Amino acid sequence: MPFRKTNILNHTQTKRPFLTQTQNENKQTLIRPKKKNVSKTETPLKFVPLGGLEEIGRNCSFFEYKNEIVLIDAGLQFPEEETPGIDYIIPNVSYLREKKENIVGLILTHAHYDHIGAIPYIIDDLGNPPIYATPLTKAIVLKRQEDFPNSPKLNIVEIKNGDHLKISEYFEASFFGVPHTVPESTGVVLHTPIGNIVHFSDFRIDYDEKGKPQGLDEFKKVGQMGVHTLMVDSTNAEKEGYTLSEKIVAKNLEEIFKKSEGRIIVATFSSLLDRIAQIINIAEKLGRKVTFSGYSMKANVSIAQNLGYIKTKPGTIIALEDIHKYKDNKILILSTGAQGEPNASLMRIINGEHRLIQIKKGDTVVLSSSVIPGNERSVQNVKDNLARQGAIVYHSDLVDIHSSGHAPKEDQKLVMNLIKPKFVVPIHGYYFMRAANALNAIEAGIPKENVFLMDNGQVAELYKNKFIISEETIPAFYVMVDGLGIGDVEEVVLRDRRNLAKEGMLVLIATIDKRSGQLLKSPDIISRGFIYLRENQPLLEEIRKKIRGIIARLHGQDYGSDYLKTLMREQISNFLYHKTRRRPIVIPVVIEI
Amino acid sequence: MPFRKTNILNHTQTKRPFLTQTQNENKQTLIRPKKKNVSKTETPLKFVPLGGLEEIGRNCSFFEYKNEIVLIDAGLQFPEEETPGIDYIIPNVSYLREKKENIVGLILTHAHYDHIGAIPYIIDDLGNPPIYATPLTKAIVLKRQEDFPNSPKLNIVEIKNGDHLKISEYFEASFFGVPHTVPESTGVVLHTPIGNIVHFSDFRIDYDEKGKPQGLDEFKKVGQMGVHTLMVDSTNAEKEGYTLSEKIVAKNLEEIFKKSEGRIIVATFSSLLDRIAQIINIAEKLGRKVTFSGYSMKANVSIAQNLGYIKTKPGTIIALEDIHKYKDNKILILSTGAQGEPNASLMRIINGEHRLIQIKKGDTVVLSSSVIPGNERSVQNVKDNLARQGAIVYHSDLVDIHSSGHAPKEDQKLVMNLIKPKFVVPIHGYYFMRAANALNAIEAGIPKENVFLMDNGQVAELYKNKFIISEETIPAFYVMVDGLGIGDVEEVVLRDRRNLAKEGMLVLIATIDKRSGQLLKSPDIISRGFIYLRENQPLLEEIRKKIRGIIARLHGQDYGSDYLKTLMREQISNFLYHKTRRRPIVIPVVIEI
Repeated sequence: MPFRKTNILNHTQTKRPFLTQTQNENKQTLIRPKKKNVSKTETPLKFVPLGGLEEIGRNCSFFEYKNEIVLIDAGLQFPEEETPGIDYIIPNVSYLREKKENIVGLILTHAHYDHIGAIPYIIDDLGNPPIYATPLTKAIVLKRQEDFPNSPKLNIVEIKNGDHLKISEYFEASFFGVPHTVPESTGVVLHTPIGNIVHFSDFRIDYDEKGKPQGLDEFKKVGQMGVHTLMVDSTNAEKEGYTLSEKIVAKNLEEIFKKSEGRIIVATFSSLLDRIAQIINIAEKLGRKVTFSGYSMKANVSIAQNLGYIKTKPGTIIALEDIHKYKDNKILILSTGAQGEPNASLMRIINGEHRLIQIKKGDTVVLSSSVIPGNERSVQNVKDNLARQGAIVYHSDLVDIHSSGHAPKEDQKLVMNLIKPKFVVPIHGYYFMRAANALNAIEAGIPKENVFLMDNGQVAELYKNKFIISEETIPAFYVMVDGLGIGDVEEVVLRDRRNLAKEGMLVLIATIDKRSGQLLKSPDIISRGFIYLRENQPLLEEIRKKIRGIIARLHGQDYGSDYLKTLMREQISNFLYHKTRRRPIVIPVVIEI
Repeated sequence: MPFRKTNILNHTQTKRPFLTQTQNENKQTLIRPKKKNVSKTETPLKFVPLGGLEEIGRNCSFFEYKNEIVLIDAGLQFPEEETPGIDYIIPNVSYLREKKENIVGLILTHAHYDHIGAIPYIIDDLGNPPIYATPLTKAIVLKRQEDFPNSPKLNIVEIKNGDHLKISEYFEASFFGVPHTVPESTGVVLHTPIGNIVHFSDFRIDYDEKGKPQGLDEFKKVGQMGVHTLMVDSTNAEKEGYTLSEKIVAKNLEEIFKKSEGRIIVATFSSLLDRIAQIINIAEKLGRKVTFSGYSMKANVSIAQNLGYIKTKPGTIIALEDIHKYKDNKILILSTGAQGEPNASLMRIINGEHRLIQIKKGDTVVLSSSVIPGNERSVQNVKDNLARQGAIVYHSDLVDIHSSGHAPKEDQKLVMNLIKPKFVVPIHGYYFMRAANALNAIEAGIPKENVFLMDNGQVAELYKNKFIISEETIPAFYVMVDGLGIGDVEEVVLRDRRNLAKEGMLVLIATIDKRSGQLLKSPDIISRGFIYLRENQPLLEEIRKKIRGIIARLHGQDYGSDYLKTLMREQISNFLYHKTRRRPIVIPVVIEI
């Protein structure tokens, strides 16, 4: 059977360099696979990951059977160094847009933006299908919709873990609780004509303080249903060992809080609602009032309170405006900004721009999150500035005050042993992480030929007894959100941004008499990000002289302005490189009067 | 005494936000401190760190006594996210330039670029003083000078560890070996009129396989001299525990090499010469030929061979061109590029651009270095691509195949206990790291009032029995190297680069009749990095219409071109923000004919 098996041991596809991927894949066309040896009577279930398999974020995938399509998650990805100025990257739904009438549902696994954040941007393209979500996920999705008044009214079907429901003719779904860092995180068993597909999304295992795993029964029950394929989160699959118990995190936080003689400021992600609930509990136990700083922190806590996930005695939660009414050692502030995000509450506090809080000597600041790759320098800046201002700083490199929401190696194997799938597709994470999880699957007893590493946009065909990665691919390249524009920032624009950032630019304007071809005035030069022109007048004068020379040499010739522009670009670029060893973008403009 | 004591417990200075620092400090003037209560007869020894105390890199400091100045190290710093397009950041020597006739020597502690890399840029400003360096450091400095034909001939005095020599009237120096990752790393005891100053620069402790520390006698001997102040490397001062033994690293590498059935490619820093020597030894032991890929790898190995730090049997080292003459399991390639640097050898191998090597299935690739903060994404890319191409990848997150050259907590305390200084100044590292090392010093028994956290450019005055941080500061702000320019890239240029990278720019050219004030032609619009203009003609047309409207409304008024430019900038910026929610840099140009 001449299909491309893409498992870890014979994967030979060479990855295109990252930067050109978007451009190349723009030109991608749909290749119909040749199929042989597959029963003509059996229709495959197609599985397509649209995002999350070559990045962290942008999680989105779909299943297609005959004329029915079910999506799982619609997340966004934060911009990267290579995509400067971009707001978000979202899943590419150009394939789905053409088939929107076939979409029977979008299932959301949990309330994190890398799983729900793309909804306002793509829901119209999907034909606004029913969205299946738990009450908390629903509330957070609806809260976000408020920022998108032009997005259609969503059609959300409330589900709860334990539910089993019929979505369409060919799809039924069972939902089961998976431990993660936000309440109501959901695993999905999709009952399809070819078998049961389990899609976990993000998960970890909860341990008690003694290291005993909790809630394994849920996974066991799923395994007892008989599982065809398991799609499994690989974010931490490289990490050795087991999930750090949230109970230990709580114990360590409590110890730090007890030691603290002044105010306590805990910075964490507003999406880590389980942690936030726990911190509030500890504060209450120690007799501290709790208050919140940062828009998303307030919004999420309010939702969790309404749904009963955060319960406090009357008087525990106070307004930020009232903190001066209490002694310092009776205050705990929950704040956004643990990653050093420039506009988040903690950064405003540090920079003296917060309207109510400044750091003072004796404050204890706890950074209860891991550092997202790329944020190391800004977190270092946060720690330096807090320490300089007299705060006592705790972060998770020093003491276990954060536990990831993603299962490491041993937890992966534990779960795979309970679910006992026939086939495994590691999802969520860069190739190397997924390859590590493929090895975990093999160590858990899955035959290596049944473990598949896919790329975004690849199409898997699932038959009752087969799993095939077909030669068909569908567009999965980056769609970028920048301001109001969706998908209109192209690689050429990003390339310009990257180049402008490197050496800046120079616009050379030659204003020319249409008839004589002579300069009507001295050439104008505009520059940004190259050198400080005010202090470099001699260089400017030399550039003007060069331009005059170019035009003088053309005198009497019947040249087009394009030719003049080419000469200006090449000769001035070379001149500047020779003089400065820099290569700004040189943009010649010829104005003919 | 109204001096500012800047030790960890009463440091109240608020750090200026990083981005504005350069600008502000430009305007800094020399403030003469008021001194009281210090014996009029005692001249202090001044100590000034010029770099390395608020960053990693750019290590440079000097001591001044009466009319004599001794420098230690002259390193460079690699650019940061906030300094796009910059080649290097180097120490600010504007204070020293004015006093170059007083400079009696520059002592180099070891051959790493963050300690020697600024020499070609600043040696002229220092008056080309004698440079004190060991043979290996000297050879690497001279090799680099070849790239700077206009730099003066250096005056290098060869020293070796154990030497004691008189530098000038007031300064003598003893050199002692400190363990680091490059041979001939040197600690300095500066014998001065006020006492012995120990300046370590980078160091760690070597352990044997059983965990027994090696070579502590050197530190003990230094302690026996009686030490006034210790300046001590803080890069890893936050890390718990002891240095990982290089013997264990070697053992783990040997195990990986033994398991490997194909070629072995080890990527590491070319500056980790101790590691490189060890890898070559293991390869030889296992009967593999060794070859090198990457310019700096070849250059450094050749220097280390000449000086006897790399010794091999004849035939062990082969030319890269000859690898096809041997079986895959007889080859080991040492390559640059462990950080995913775009032009390094490993990246060219991965991208299929290397003239002699491609990755093939069964290759083992070992990344034997830590990931420098900021490089996480490119290292991830390296791992992903290697795994996709069929290589077996080992990196130091998974197995101990790298040991840092910087001492962690327990080693710090061990050394401080042996040196027994009266005063301690943690150097090398961000504030938080240095604050952590201040705590280490206190735990090692140094009274907390004798531990000083300084900033770059602060001036410490050392008396026989006192250590004072004076109110005097000298310029220590960034000096940037960009192409041929040194120090001519100003904050305004960098700010433009950062803004250009975010949303791009738009140049609006209005060509106007000087007399009538009317447009002579349709406005020209040039844009880069904003939106793709070819596909946005309607927006362009609207901008032109707006400009025409602005000029029409001014008709008959005697306006200056500056007023017109202001209107164009403001109105078009607002219009674009309204239409796109983006804020490109808008540059209006008015050409009057």
